[in-house]
Amino acid sequence: MKKLMVVYGLLIVSFLVYVVMYRMDEGRSAAWEDGGLRGSIGENYVMVTFQSGMEYWKNILKGFEDGGDALGVSVEYRGATQYDVKEQIMVLEQVIAKKPAGIALSAIDSSALTATINKAVDAGIPVVLFDADAQGSKAYSFLATNNYNAGAAAADKMAQLLGREGEVGIITQSGQQNHADRTSGFKEAIAHRYPAMKVVAVKEGKGDAIIWRDAVLEMMEEHPDLRGVFATEASGGAGAADAVIAAGRKGELRIIGFDTNKETLDRISDGTVSATIAQGTWNMGYWSLQYLFHLHHGLTVPAPTLGNDVAPLPPRVDTGITIVTRENVDDFYAK
Amino acid sequence: MKKLMVVYGLLIVSFLVYVVMYRMDEGRSAAWEDGGLRGSIGENYVMVTFQSGMEYWKNILKGFEDGGDALGVSVEYRGATQYDVKEQIMVLEQVIAKKPAGIALSAIDSSALTATINKAVDAGIPVVLFDADAQGSKAYSFLATNNYNAGAAAADKMAQLLGREGEVGIITQSGQQNHADRTSGFKEAIAHRYPAMKVVAVKEGKGDAIIWRDAVLEMMEEHPDLRGVFATEASGGAGAADAVIAAGRKGELRIIGFDTNKETLDRISDGTVSATIAQGTWNMGYWSLQYLFHLHHGLTVPAPTLGNDVAPLPPRVDTGITIVTRENVDDFYAK
Repeated sequence: MKKLMVVYGLLIVSFLVYVVMYRMDEGRSAAWEDGGLRGSIGENYVMVTFQSGMEYWKNILKGFEDGGDALGVSVEYRGATQYDVKEQIMVLEQVIAKKPAGIALSAIDSSALTATINKAVDAGIPVVLFDADAQGSKAYSFLATNNYNAGAAAADKMAQLLGREGEVGIITQSGQQNHADRTSGFKEAIAHRYPAMKVVAVKEGKGDAIIWRDAVLEMMEEHPDLRGVFATEASGGAGAADAVIAAGRKGELRIIGFDTNKETLDRISDGTVSATIAQGTWNMGYWSLQYLFHLHHGLTVPAPTLGNDVAPLPPRVDTGITIVTRENVDDFYAK
Repeated sequence: MKKLMVVYGLLIVSFLVYVVMYRMDEGRSAAWEDGGLRGSIGENYVMVTFQSGMEYWKNILKGFEDGGDALGVSVEYRGATQYDVKEQIMVLEQVIAKKPAGIALSAIDSSALTATINKAVDAGIPVVLFDADAQGSKAYSFLATNNYNAGAAAADKMAQLLGREGEVGIITQSGQQNHADRTSGFKEAIAHRYPAMKVVAVKEGKGDAIIWRDAVLEMMEEHPDLRGVFATEASGGAGAADAVIAAGRKGELRIIGFDTNKETLDRISDGTVSATIAQGTWNMGYWSLQYLFHLHHGLTVPAPTLGNDVAPLPPRVDTGITIVTRENVDDFYAK
């Protein structure tokens, strides 16, 4: 009987020790939760684009997902399938109706989406924009490549490749601001920084690699001393590569392309293209998610509730570029 | 005896239930720790400035500290006491010697600190810059006000105050790029957006409120139709305020100032100054800390170890501005 009482007593003590330990652990867990940045799995952040099949979005979505994983929240991707303003507005309306914790949007048109964006913000759903802006909307931030600087960086790389001298040309898409900015960044950097270099030709147009191949072959004929070509978009780089192969000048006439589609990366691997400009797509997605999280949780100073004329977040973020060459090309193939 | 056995049995069951619950809670705690962004208290991030007594740094440090609290890491502030290049280099060297987890620096001189910054980065200590850049250094990002845009925002506010018409003047400090950018942002926004407005005078110089008071009184005499003044720095705004009081034109001739020192805020409260431009100082500190945390923990894509020509983080962040008026001035007094 006495033995039983001892066992009984020991059990009660052990039990109390466990209760105390359990309480302490609860306290520690709460501190962890307070100390770190963490949302809840019920928080849903949505990334919205147009032309949802485009390879270009993949790495942005990867950054958005990585941000969601880091902060312990849910993310979702919704895209209009076509390059169609009305379809994107419809998708955005559907997303708003579900009252997500935040929306990261690439706007197909800089003014057509403003009313729908403002509707979301007025309903208390934070919106940030990436890659393509909707100026004048109530979105809190715009995260994208500074295309002028990207063009200037391409000029610096070209100068390095050519020993800071020689004639160069540009092929670029007409009628789009991002391509115009890349072109002027390249031209002005050459003009201001490299006195022994000259931009002798700029061909503007639209089209696939075949059209650009012919344009570059023409440029080579018109300028026999041409030593380099900067293409402001992917199909131009592919066309220029075809041209130097056709002319038997592979590796001698230097090409710098833009973006990191598989064809361009392959041309870097085989030495036809010297470099390409990779946009900071992961940064666009990751920091968009971070910004939406901070807005949703009221972590910004000043608070967005102060009204207009207020920047609770950095309103403009240059997400940067990386220059891809044969040395680091393997890091840029899709994994 | 049988009653005792029942109690005994119940106790064992309760005990086991507690053990199981405790284990489950441990599991949940570990998930919290993994899921959220959180460092350790042993991680020390250092903010380094010059003229450490300046009121302007306070809110940047607040953002830096808030970032540290959010991520559960330690922060420290170190500043050269004077406006002295050598002293700041010495302070930075001392900070590097302690091998902190990261350094956020406002560079007193855009080239003199480059070697010391690069030394830190080469030693594996992440460095970001805020407010004042060191172009060409290996620092990973620069977070600061886009002064051109800030000037343009001041022009928009002035246009709103004046009903989009009338003559305006600018007083600005000579020889500093940030002031030159604010001036040209203001001038070009007026020229391009407000055809019924005109910048009729720009006075450049240096000095305290008394000198600027006299300059504005002079400007008012030379341009009797002058309806507004934009001052690109704080003492200019104070001087302009003194001038309109001396001329008996308080509230009639509109003044827009820059920054949020106590004197400017008081002049907004009493109606002498219509608005001032608050820089996104909290954002500079908070997002500097976040960027350093991400570099220290290897959370960026691409990784900084890929070498030069790589942007693991957004290289340039416009930290934004807020327009302070009588409506929201109370939020900007130091708390």
